[in-house]
Amino acid sequence: MKSPDAKLGELLAPVESGMQRMREILISELRAESASVSDMTDHIGRFRGKQLRAAVCLLAGQATGNSTDEHPKVAAIIEMIHLATLVHDDVLDGAEVRRRVACVNRRWDNQVAVLLGDLLYARAFHMSTELSSRMCSRVLSSTTQRICAGEIDQSGLRYDFELSQERYEAIAGAKTASLYQASCELGASYPGGRQELAAELGRFGWEIGLGFQVVDDCLDVMGREAEVGKSVGNDVDDGKVTLPVLWTYARASDQVRSRIRDAYTLPGLEDRRAHLFGVCDLAPGVEAAMARAAQLVESAMGRLRALEPGPARQALESLGDFVLQRKW
Amino acid sequence: MKSPDAKLGELLAPVESGMQRMREILISELRAESASVSDMTDHIGRFRGKQLRAAVCLLAGQATGNSTDEHPKVAAIIEMIHLATLVHDDVLDGAEVRRRVACVNRRWDNQVAVLLGDLLYARAFHMSTELSSRMCSRVLSSTTQRICAGEIDQSGLRYDFELSQERYEAIAGAKTASLYQASCELGASYPGGRQELAAELGRFGWEIGLGFQVVDDCLDVMGREAEVGKSVGNDVDDGKVTLPVLWTYARASDQVRSRIRDAYTLPGLEDRRAHLFGVCDLAPGVEAAMARAAQLVESAMGRLRALEPGPARQALESLGDFVLQRKW
Repeated sequence: MKSPDAKLGELLAPVESGMQRMREILISELRAESASVSDMTDHIGRFRGKQLRAAVCLLAGQATGNSTDEHPKVAAIIEMIHLATLVHDDVLDGAEVRRRVACVNRRWDNQVAVLLGDLLYARAFHMSTELSSRMCSRVLSSTTQRICAGEIDQSGLRYDFELSQERYEAIAGAKTASLYQASCELGASYPGGRQELAAELGRFGWEIGLGFQVVDDCLDVMGREAEVGKSVGNDVDDGKVTLPVLWTYARASDQVRSRIRDAYTLPGLEDRRAHLFGVCDLAPGVEAAMARAAQLVESAMGRLRALEPGPARQALESLGDFVLQRKW
Repeated sequence: MKSPDAKLGELLAPVESGMQRMREILISELRAESASVSDMTDHIGRFRGKQLRAAVCLLAGQATGNSTDEHPKVAAIIEMIHLATLVHDDVLDGAEVRRRVACVNRRWDNQVAVLLGDLLYARAFHMSTELSSRMCSRVLSSTTQRICAGEIDQSGLRYDFELSQERYEAIAGAKTASLYQASCELGASYPGGRQELAAELGRFGWEIGLGFQVVDDCLDVMGREAEVGKSVGNDVDDGKVTLPVLWTYARASDQVRSRIRDAYTLPGLEDRRAHLFGVCDLAPGVEAAMARAAQLVESAMGRLRALEPGPARQALESLGDFVLQRKW
């Protein structure tokens, strides 16, 4: 079996030149006139990430015979919006970490991070107004609203252990899958590709994106920090009750339920995730959540049958395994 | 002499029906599908404010004979962007106020406030994609970038007492005047009005907006809370060295300069503004700043001579007095 890294390389091969162009556009658009803004956007440009959203946009275009000169720019706009959401996520998540730092400093950091995220959103929208069709502006401004509404809903449902799986998926989907959906739809239909394939690829994007988020939630609850490559246990700290925990809670005795709630809420707990491990067995819940992710990926794979065989379709197929096997 | 409130009523009279339509659009666009989002947007809709940016957009249209059915929507989009900046400003400024509140609660508040601001920006951009021309999307996404860059620059220049007046004005202008400029330009030129008048009205908007910000800075340093209607002394607390203080500092002895810096920076000072009053006489600096605001307003008035006489031009003229006389 190939490693996730090898999988990712395979995935990007058919659109390597488009990805290269996308990165050039992104770097050039991150440049700013103001020195203090430039310092920050340079920094942002360095944490490159997997750029999967851009990749699926280009692959969806290629797989549907709809690759235009503007596709790398559309993909760069999508990555810019993703960067903006990351910058704002960091503000929100960073509150904990920065709590030990001098207050003015923390506040200054949060302040510019909020503003920098706003600037990136505005730049992404401005880039989209320079394209030949307005489709990208429309789809991405509407998708951004969905992402934000999903995150707000998630905030409002913190510490809600009775959340249904359907509602959890609707929110995780809005938060994460909607941008994958938009990437696929735009890839296949910008500026005027094949609409019926765009809708089907949009559903592929939604399912892959939701699968990705479910795996992410499992890694946060079960993963080892060294393997996942980022801090884990954040969801428990933040009061986010994700699928593996919802599954466990729904099947637990009243006594265990009360202990699970305590792990999330008792003041002063140093390592909430470790405490959670101590009060219940999360393994079956994680297994059930991973099975759900596999089901989503399988459904997504089925949608690719509408496409002509070829390297782009093959790459999209390998995305399924990548989502399920990834450790980072 | 009329009160500022009477002035404002006078100002809005020629565009009252357009303003009414603008408010209807704004309220309807603030509605959301999700209940938790809706709770917040309803709340936002209640702090209505002066809506001066929408008013100058409609007045600029009317004064140049360029009032279309779409103008109230353009004006509503401008107010939506302004609301988004206010929501994010509150996150940043609110840190102080919320410091006495339970931490999870504060964090939850900040989190949704950041997301809500993002949602409002995205909705504003989405509204602009529904207009017949792309001009509004282009101008407003570019203006939003300018606003954010101005705020970031301002953050980076906190506690900088050597700031030149030119640089202070460039930043205060980007932060505040650029949206007034865009409002005037769009009013006069959307979707295809008279370009030469649009540029001149844009400069009018810039000068009025900058005058407005300078007066705001004076009120924050000299105003009484009960009269200004909001808390004062925020700039000193935040380390923002505004025009009246820059003027005072530039003309102070080394000893007084050191005391001014102390008033801004010494840890543990309860009322920094009161402390600042104690170490220097700010009145001449405020007077000089108000004289600069008057000069900007006078220059703005001169630009209106390019317009045909009529009620809309008259209303824009009365805006000058309103800016200089306002106490809130």
